[in-house]
Amino acid sequence: MNVPLLVPDFLRRSALLFPEKLAIVDGSHRFTYAEFETRVNRLSHALRAEGLRKGDRVCYLGPNSHRFLETFYATAQIGVVLVPLNYRLAASDHEYILNHAGVKAVLADHELVGVVDTIRDKLACATTFIVAQDGGKAADGWTAWENWIADSPTSRPDPVDLDENDLVSINYTSGTTARPKGVMLTHRNCYVNAYGLIAHLGFCHEDVELWTLPMFHCNGWGGVYALTGVGGTHVVLRAIDAERIFELIATERVTLACMAPAVLSAILEYEHRERHAVTTRPRFVVAGAPPPIDFVRRLEEELGWDFLQIYGLTETSPLLTLSRPDHATPRTDYARRARAGTPAIGVDLVLRDDEGCIVPRDDSSVGEICARTNVVFAGYWEQPEETERAVRDGYFHTGDLAVWDSVGNVHIVDRKKDVIISGGENISSPEIEDVLFAHPDILDCAVVGVPDPQWGETPLAVVVVRVGADLSPDEVVAYCREEMAHFKCPRRAELIDRLPRTATGKVQKFKLRERYWEGDRRVN
Amino acid sequence: MNVPLLVPDFLRRSALLFPEKLAIVDGSHRFTYAEFETRVNRLSHALRAEGLRKGDRVCYLGPNSHRFLETFYATAQIGVVLVPLNYRLAASDHEYILNHAGVKAVLADHELVGVVDTIRDKLACATTFIVAQDGGKAADGWTAWENWIADSPTSRPDPVDLDENDLVSINYTSGTTARPKGVMLTHRNCYVNAYGLIAHLGFCHEDVELWTLPMFHCNGWGGVYALTGVGGTHVVLRAIDAERIFELIATERVTLACMAPAVLSAILEYEHRERHAVTTRPRFVVAGAPPPIDFVRRLEEELGWDFLQIYGLTETSPLLTLSRPDHATPRTDYARRARAGTPAIGVDLVLRDDEGCIVPRDDSSVGEICARTNVVFAGYWEQPEETERAVRDGYFHTGDLAVWDSVGNVHIVDRKKDVIISGGENISSPEIEDVLFAHPDILDCAVVGVPDPQWGETPLAVVVVRVGADLSPDEVVAYCREEMAHFKCPRRAELIDRLPRTATGKVQKFKLRERYWEGDRRVN
Repeated sequence: MNVPLLVPDFLRRSALLFPEKLAIVDGSHRFTYAEFETRVNRLSHALRAEGLRKGDRVCYLGPNSHRFLETFYATAQIGVVLVPLNYRLAASDHEYILNHAGVKAVLADHELVGVVDTIRDKLACATTFIVAQDGGKAADGWTAWENWIADSPTSRPDPVDLDENDLVSINYTSGTTARPKGVMLTHRNCYVNAYGLIAHLGFCHEDVELWTLPMFHCNGWGGVYALTGVGGTHVVLRAIDAERIFELIATERVTLACMAPAVLSAILEYEHRERHAVTTRPRFVVAGAPPPIDFVRRLEEELGWDFLQIYGLTETSPLLTLSRPDHATPRTDYARRARAGTPAIGVDLVLRDDEGCIVPRDDSSVGEICARTNVVFAGYWEQPEETERAVRDGYFHTGDLAVWDSVGNVHIVDRKKDVIISGGENISSPEIEDVLFAHPDILDCAVVGVPDPQWGETPLAVVVVRVGADLSPDEVVAYCREEMAHFKCPRRAELIDRLPRTATGKVQKFKLRERYWEGDRRVN
Repeated sequence: MNVPLLVPDFLRRSALLFPEKLAIVDGSHRFTYAEFETRVNRLSHALRAEGLRKGDRVCYLGPNSHRFLETFYATAQIGVVLVPLNYRLAASDHEYILNHAGVKAVLADHELVGVVDTIRDKLACATTFIVAQDGGKAADGWTAWENWIADSPTSRPDPVDLDENDLVSINYTSGTTARPKGVMLTHRNCYVNAYGLIAHLGFCHEDVELWTLPMFHCNGWGGVYALTGVGGTHVVLRAIDAERIFELIATERVTLACMAPAVLSAILEYEHRERHAVTTRPRFVVAGAPPPIDFVRRLEEELGWDFLQIYGLTETSPLLTLSRPDHATPRTDYARRARAGTPAIGVDLVLRDDEGCIVPRDDSSVGEICARTNVVFAGYWEQPEETERAVRDGYFHTGDLAVWDSVGNVHIVDRKKDVIISGGENISSPEIEDVLFAHPDILDCAVVGVPDPQWGETPLAVVVVRVGADLSPDEVVAYCREEMAHFKCPRRAELIDRLPRTATGKVQKFKLRERYWEGDRRVN
């Protein structure tokens, strides 16, 4: 019997089996699974009443909130496609995305209403504007969320004919290198990804997940589905604030959190841990970039918490690989555990060189990570030529360069576009960054290639120095020369107050490079 | 991207990522995942050399062994359909099944060669006969396994075009009530079931599973796939022997075992536990019948091990529901934990009354368990009318009767055919059996309905008394009348040396009943 793999299954299961269990904590709101489902059903009816039908697009623009979580299920069960927006983008980006995706209804957090209003008359398709707020009067031209859903039925909406290959969401990529593209994810993509999270990261009924990850980012890496399916508890976090994070971990007995390395850094830097009586031992799942090895050591040794690294992209729903201590990787081998790790069940992953040949698994040959698996997206929305460039010969080409190590771990050495080729040698920027992060006075850093008349290009270290520390660019270079092979060493260093990052924590290396390469081939 | 969900994925992943990890322990044999895959590939080539092609059927007849495990993967990766046989059946049953399934190649354990030889000239399709043995000369008319595969290539065989709806196996049901039927399981069935085992029973990389379950029984409930996929270790057990079980749990550091209640009973009855230094805390997963509550208590309190109940049928791959301690079911609530439990992810389960109406979830209304899910089989082999009887209105009808309790557990009260209707009241035989099992002098028992001139039918207790104990049938009846409502009490009891059971541990109640009902409507 073939029953389509549909993501509404996840909420229906928990609402049926665990109706009284705590599903969502969001500020002063605490909803059970029965209440979660009731609110979702009301929202589905309200969307239908606005004329939204299967295949239509609705966006949610805002930071994490229970209403965002509800929107994932309210849209999916009536076949409406959700466009979760990165609220840190500029208004012009939102304009581009909303028109590109043909969004008919805009659901926006009350803090984002002003941003939408600046572009409102340029939105070609949007006719419905709903503001997510707890109470009070809505801004002009907007309908207040709670009034809007208040009179809708609580019953499950009439079913719509759904196939597992129908779309759940269009997730616009965060644009480290170019204009956002709309990643189309299907029910089957998200369902299999949820199974992967449950299988490999141990999402379980007892889990209490703190939302240190934006829900817009690849549907919370699929946590929206996996945690709901097992009947765990979502603890919503609206903004990254280390004190609030420690407070919630302690009071809500958090067991799980997913984050980019920058969030992990903020948590490690927090100075008043002793104020919070943490009684759980949370699993911290990190992705977005390889974390500095030192972060892993500190998380496990200083805080006594568990570290897991995963790797994937929005285009892969995202889970491709994961790294955890196992029979071949001891807990204290932090260097290996910071790697991307081993492919998940059902992920056929190969590394291909520039000629398309599969490179050997010898811990040194570099190839582009290519994946063939059910979590690979259905293509870029209305960009078939971009889809063909990314998915060819049956594999999705990630643009990330890696080596296979001898115990089955994938080790990412660079973005394909970020690799530094100096005097014919490939230099891995994360390797240099790991050395820099081990320096006690360095808070944050990134290494990029800049033009060099002799070597073609050469590594530049861009460094954020810790408050109160005194470190000169020359000292940074001298330190590197003591710690690593000279050909890999940055020839220059530069101090900066703050690295440019995407909303999801990836360093925007193209911004660091552009001043040096302007007018040159390397500006992306 | 849709990639077919195919079970060979599981072995390929572990062989690629964990080639040096211990995959199989079987007596003196210890195979790594690389060796496991090599042997599987040789076997696939050997099967092809015999002319076997996609869709052809091959049987394996024998107790658990590494060769049986290898056969699952060797057949699946070339699209050959495996018929795993219950070796405890009579030769005439084997003859029926082999001819019904059109089996072309017979792979048989060396102890079963004689049984096959008695029916060999009646087998219509079988042309290849391979005997599974370690070395030595094969019996006349048989080819020795190791010689047969020795010269085959170790490389992966040329790929065959496989769809996820293609068959993996045809599993003949064990026949508690009727002639065996061939349950067709697809790749998708087995793949989703494996995800279910991993998600809900926590199959993981560190697991060491002791094969207290016959591999022929629904492909080891899917453990063949789930455990392999996560790279755990299979510890093969050829026959149930409590001393050997304790020995292997101690020496191989077993963490997981699946079994029927009868096996659990043998383990609990074993008297020399103190001889074995068990340092793990294994999870014991029980199914096949609801276990006596007292078994659960003893397993957790006396042995300190973990108990999990699951429910399913061969027709459902098998996992439908599972019962574990959670927020609503405390660990010491053994009565609730012995129930079938909550449906797994993706399992749409309803209880229907005789008119087909869904019964309320009120802890008292009884209905037949009906399931709509991807683990429901593809039908009975060449018995479309039987398939139509079992799968109708979009649901598979299990024939099991249950109530939903208030916290989302399914509680099986009886087989539809086994329910006792006395004076118009439905009586649940497991409820009476639970009371009987709590008696210190009762080792085993079963309750069936027998004819009664006044009440239509009435419960009969069939009891196995513990060695050395002294208990009369009248004392059994008197004990029941003290412990439960009189209308439910057995009016008679009968002592017996041993209950008739199927190979998988289910009591064959029809055998207990048939002496009483001969010539009457109730003999199945």
